[in-house]
Amino acid sequence: MLVYVAVLVITLLALAYVTMNFIKLRNMEEGQIDMVEIAGIIRRGARTFMRAEYTIIAPVVLVVAAIFSCFIEKSSGFTFIVGAGMSSLACVIGMRSATYANVRTTNTAARTKSIGETTQTALLGGSISGLCVAAFGLLGVVLIYLVAGGIKNDAVGGGYVASFPCNPTIMRFTTYSLGCSLVAMFNRIAGGNYTKAADISSDILAKIRHDMPEDDSRVPNVIADFIGDNVNDIAGNCSDLLESFVATISASIMIAVSLFNGIKDVIVFHGEETAQKLAESADKLSEVGAAMGINASEFADVSEKLENLLTRMHLFPILLAGLGLLGCLLGLGYAQFKKMSDNPSRELDLATWISAGFTVLFGLGAAAIMFAGTGSVDTLKLVGFKLGFISPWICAVLGIISGVLIGIITEYYTSTDYKPTQKIAEIATEGEAFVITKGDAVGSRSCLLPILLIGISLFASGAICGVYGIATAALGMLSFVGATVSIDAFGPIADNAGGIAEACHLDPDVRVITDKLDAVGNTTAAIGKGFAIGSAAFATVSLIVAYVENCYFGEFAKITLDFADYIVVAGGIIGGALVEYFSAMLTDNTIESARVMADVGDAELSKPGVLDGQVKPDYNMCVQLAAKQALKKMLVPSVLAVVIPVVAGFIFGVKFVGGLLVGATVVAIPRAIFMGNSGGAFDNAKKYIESGAIEGHGKGTAAHKAAVTGDTVGDTRKDVVGVALDIFIKTMSTVANTLAVVIRSVRG
Amino acid sequence: MLVYVAVLVITLLALAYVTMNFIKLRNMEEGQIDMVEIAGIIRRGARTFMRAEYTIIAPVVLVVAAIFSCFIEKSSGFTFIVGAGMSSLACVIGMRSATYANVRTTNTAARTKSIGETTQTALLGGSISGLCVAAFGLLGVVLIYLVAGGIKNDAVGGGYVASFPCNPTIMRFTTYSLGCSLVAMFNRIAGGNYTKAADISSDILAKIRHDMPEDDSRVPNVIADFIGDNVNDIAGNCSDLLESFVATISASIMIAVSLFNGIKDVIVFHGEETAQKLAESADKLSEVGAAMGINASEFADVSEKLENLLTRMHLFPILLAGLGLLGCLLGLGYAQFKKMSDNPSRELDLATWISAGFTVLFGLGAAAIMFAGTGSVDTLKLVGFKLGFISPWICAVLGIISGVLIGIITEYYTSTDYKPTQKIAEIATEGEAFVITKGDAVGSRSCLLPILLIGISLFASGAICGVYGIATAALGMLSFVGATVSIDAFGPIADNAGGIAEACHLDPDVRVITDKLDAVGNTTAAIGKGFAIGSAAFATVSLIVAYVENCYFGEFAKITLDFADYIVVAGGIIGGALVEYFSAMLTDNTIESARVMADVGDAELSKPGVLDGQVKPDYNMCVQLAAKQALKKMLVPSVLAVVIPVVAGFIFGVKFVGGLLVGATVVAIPRAIFMGNSGGAFDNAKKYIESGAIEGHGKGTAAHKAAVTGDTVGDTRKDVVGVALDIFIKTMSTVANTLAVVIRSVRG
Repeated sequence: MLVYVAVLVITLLALAYVTMNFIKLRNMEEGQIDMVEIAGIIRRGARTFMRAEYTIIAPVVLVVAAIFSCFIEKSSGFTFIVGAGMSSLACVIGMRSATYANVRTTNTAARTKSIGETTQTALLGGSISGLCVAAFGLLGVVLIYLVAGGIKNDAVGGGYVASFPCNPTIMRFTTYSLGCSLVAMFNRIAGGNYTKAADISSDILAKIRHDMPEDDSRVPNVIADFIGDNVNDIAGNCSDLLESFVATISASIMIAVSLFNGIKDVIVFHGEETAQKLAESADKLSEVGAAMGINASEFADVSEKLENLLTRMHLFPILLAGLGLLGCLLGLGYAQFKKMSDNPSRELDLATWISAGFTVLFGLGAAAIMFAGTGSVDTLKLVGFKLGFISPWICAVLGIISGVLIGIITEYYTSTDYKPTQKIAEIATEGEAFVITKGDAVGSRSCLLPILLIGISLFASGAICGVYGIATAALGMLSFVGATVSIDAFGPIADNAGGIAEACHLDPDVRVITDKLDAVGNTTAAIGKGFAIGSAAFATVSLIVAYVENCYFGEFAKITLDFADYIVVAGGIIGGALVEYFSAMLTDNTIESARVMADVGDAELSKPGVLDGQVKPDYNMCVQLAAKQALKKMLVPSVLAVVIPVVAGFIFGVKFVGGLLVGATVVAIPRAIFMGNSGGAFDNAKKYIESGAIEGHGKGTAAHKAAVTGDTVGDTRKDVVGVALDIFIKTMSTVANTLAVVIRSVRG
Repeated sequence: MLVYVAVLVITLLALAYVTMNFIKLRNMEEGQIDMVEIAGIIRRGARTFMRAEYTIIAPVVLVVAAIFSCFIEKSSGFTFIVGAGMSSLACVIGMRSATYANVRTTNTAARTKSIGETTQTALLGGSISGLCVAAFGLLGVVLIYLVAGGIKNDAVGGGYVASFPCNPTIMRFTTYSLGCSLVAMFNRIAGGNYTKAADISSDILAKIRHDMPEDDSRVPNVIADFIGDNVNDIAGNCSDLLESFVATISASIMIAVSLFNGIKDVIVFHGEETAQKLAESADKLSEVGAAMGINASEFADVSEKLENLLTRMHLFPILLAGLGLLGCLLGLGYAQFKKMSDNPSRELDLATWISAGFTVLFGLGAAAIMFAGTGSVDTLKLVGFKLGFISPWICAVLGIISGVLIGIITEYYTSTDYKPTQKIAEIATEGEAFVITKGDAVGSRSCLLPILLIGISLFASGAICGVYGIATAALGMLSFVGATVSIDAFGPIADNAGGIAEACHLDPDVRVITDKLDAVGNTTAAIGKGFAIGSAAFATVSLIVAYVENCYFGEFAKITLDFADYIVVAGGIIGGALVEYFSAMLTDNTIESARVMADVGDAELSKPGVLDGQVKPDYNMCVQLAAKQALKKMLVPSVLAVVIPVVAGFIFGVKFVGGLLVGATVVAIPRAIFMGNSGGAFDNAKKYIESGAIEGHGKGTAAHKAAVTGDTVGDTRKDVVGVALDIFIKTMSTVANTLAVVIRSVRG
């Protein structure tokens, strides 16, 4: 209970700090009249889009909630709505703050001419979304705890209409997580379609059909692109990472509850004979077999200690997440109140390092408080802690280190400072086909190191702390999500700020500042994508581990996802194919929307006076069209992710679904990295050429044209497909966890 | 024994038929003097390349063979050499016959002006390689049997120097299969690099640097491209499918031996108590638990019947393969001796259907002979035959049907007759980026149906006939490999024939015939690729199932590839990343070689008189350079596939390696389909535009240029990466099977 109160206090503290910052941001000056005007169009466009999106999402959420309450567990409809609500709050507030921060960042640059102060304004906007993600995510967990009256390991629940015995705690957390998941899915798919259809259609109009410069304001689709940055890169990203954050907390709790039930079954009800059986089944808990085999008669002694320990095991993740949020508050607060240097890159890194550093430090304290005094080393060994009380902390640190390193690797593969991107730019002299082929190679090559890191961290965490260790590593990576999302959100804010400066023809020295911030923002965005994928990989593996336990409720059994079993392997390869199919759907939707928007934009351009710059085109119509297209194409792929595990489960059973999840995850991780990194590298290769780095092949040359082709191909990859793949696998896994018991009861 | 003699007779019959056809082919006229000359250059170039390749392969094979004999099993070095030898024989003879058949096909067209007779000549060449693949693959199996004195289920073997107890039968078949695998790996990687570096460098020279028409004979790289078709599409394809064929036979035998040992352990040595244990472990054999649980005291009665049955279970795959070869002899023989119509597509289909039909019919007979009389229905149920003696036959038929359907689906996604390819062509009007993005979407979308087919066939086969069913389905798909490879080889022969007609400026009506054959050949090549990937998927799953059993020799135990186990899941995601990395290496190697060759070709073109067509460029130098580049870049990726499972095994253990294989397979299957189909669709979209099907956007327009970019991107995908991925996973799986016992003994 004390833990919950402490976490609630931290959460409220964070929300108070966010409110303070939000007011501070709004009170800042917006600058000259045309800046106010363009910022207003962006803000209203973004708000209109979100409103339209939520009129579609809301009924879906309500229907699904009703189904859950009727057929799964009475309170799970409510927790599902809480999840959708928390996610929506975080991304709506995050997006609003970004649409306030963009123009104020431009104005700070114009007013102060100081890189440091401009960085601080952009980061002020970014920190609001980052802290909202962590705070709302945690708030939901605490709310569910308080309303439901705590976590009851051995309670049994059921729905209003039908009843499949299940653990209400597990159901509340999976449905909460699923609520976040569904919103994230809708946001990412609609947002990606919105922003890239606008972006690509501008490209068609400017480059293919009319031979105009990029981002020319006569093309009405350009403004929709500005809005899209806020919709996809802020709202989409917030809900994506909130989902990962919540999913890992849920998975940790589910795994702790399963461990508790598994062991308690033995201790309380069955006595020695079952203990023998448990000892044989060595993979139930990594160490329990050997340990229990020896002390079969001493169960009564350890029983109480063990029960206490297992309760602490499901409190630890929540405490760790809360302390991570506290760490982020300190890191971001320091960045906000200090005087910033003119090196934004270093300042942002510093904020991240302070946040991560405090999280590591606090985490050690949390592990000591939770596990140091709970019993002998032997008791810890019973639940698989190989290195004593410090074990889960080591796993969390492994997660944090992996997260940071994946970010650095992503930077290596996508930044103009390093060879991979430079080589794409150099080969552009040989034409389009070479740019694409080289970019494909860079994208594929860039998968190895991040995945080796994830794999080795999983291996080490599992070896140190069993399945609980895997969940803890995932949570470690996400514990300072407040800081990573803040830094990530810095990117689109700076990007928008630059766009506004450009559109309002501000002084060149203002643009120098916003360009500098934009360049830094591109790198942080790439790092953020790497981090999102890495955390999704960890989260999904935790969810799959939890799924295996969730299929059997109240029984001393679990399914085995054995890939030498024909059912599992059939599911596995089909799961991989679904990832490809999902990617294809999103890609096709984007280019179809782009073509429709290009035709409409073309009609605007052919109105008299528009091409001469005398008459402004109808921006609003284009913005509305982008929204309409995006929302029309959002439903099918989103629903697919929810429906596939259910339908597959009822036809082929729970093992098949398990295989499906594994296959989808194993394929989606490298695919998502490929999409993100090849897209990022294409984008920067084009910038590298534009910077004049390759002599004789600057802007306007054939090589530049080839690089622009690469950039356009990369747009769909990095901002539509890549970012949606991690939600796809997380959503499927969360759905499977929610319905595991039902499917097994019906189909077996 | 009778089975072996029968199969040997069929094999020798096939080889006699091949010899007869080879002589018949050589005795045909080559045509006018310039045709003889160009065909000679191609033939010598191909032969020189193969010779150079084998001077590298031979020592590698000998060293590996020595290691196997010393450390694994005494005779396994010999069987490894036999594997490498059989594979080499099949692809060398296949390639030689193709380099004889190409010019003779052109000449038949010139001489007879009959499409039917020309088709017959091309198919004569193709059938030699197809029948060689099946005959040599089987010959090796029979040879090993005869030299080793039969399959001994319970023998124990070891190496000359170190000794890890293993089953000599299993070792002989895995090393035989590995010999085939290694040769296939080298062939595919070197062949892909050779042909595509030549092809792409011709494109750079013609389209980017000099603005010349495609395939212009002034560009010296063009001739290397002709040779490359024979090296990659004939030799590479032959060794690839021979490998799949042999791997599935080996996997079936290994699974049968494992089943035998598992059950025999119980029956002969342990009696009732262990039987109880076996009954508990329900997944050892699908039905054995229930069946044995009931009749624990009746073991002695069924013991003899069961032993007999299990011996027949490892004879059945060999018989099925032999009868499949007989079916192909009938199908291809009919096509050779009948009078052909002017519809080559229908004639080739007919040959395939006759071969497949006889295989299905003979397979039913084989199942009846082998399993109908061996004991009661109960005995068959003990080994998991749910539907009586007909069970393995049903699985084989499922495999055959999947193979044919995958071919049809591949055709749908890559042929100009259907929407996917047409849409790529249509969107070419919007520029390069759209062509690539749409092609990516088509490639990704095309994965679902073939993989659903594979998944459902696996599921059904497993349900009907357990793990043995999976191996039988794989073998079913490959049982008529003689016909599929023949039809597939038809493509490059027709392609070369067209090229020769073009280069020698033959009558337009000759070219009409060769163009017609070339178009049909494109489709059969695409179908062949789909078939190669499908069969590789089945083969690899069989190998993984066999691996699980192979890790424990002589013990009643097996590893569990449980993806909720941190060791397995870590291996799984890393396995997926390795596939991406391998793809990146091959892609980078190809474009690097292409750039080197382009520069050298450019130097030739700048010699006085070459660009005017007065002086012939130095073809030989270009051919040698292509070979040098290809061989230089062949070693690292090939060795990687062999080394990875070994190193990973010694560091992380057998479970990790199992995870690695699963992850690599799950990722490689959709990737290979994506590469093949997107590449094929790009190629044909370009042809569709060239045919004038899109009004106002014919040859030479911007849309055509965009489609050409797609085609060049697709070249590396379909002919380098896609075709190598299936060998990558098969080789890793075969290596793992070979070394499973050693790794487990050393590392656990």
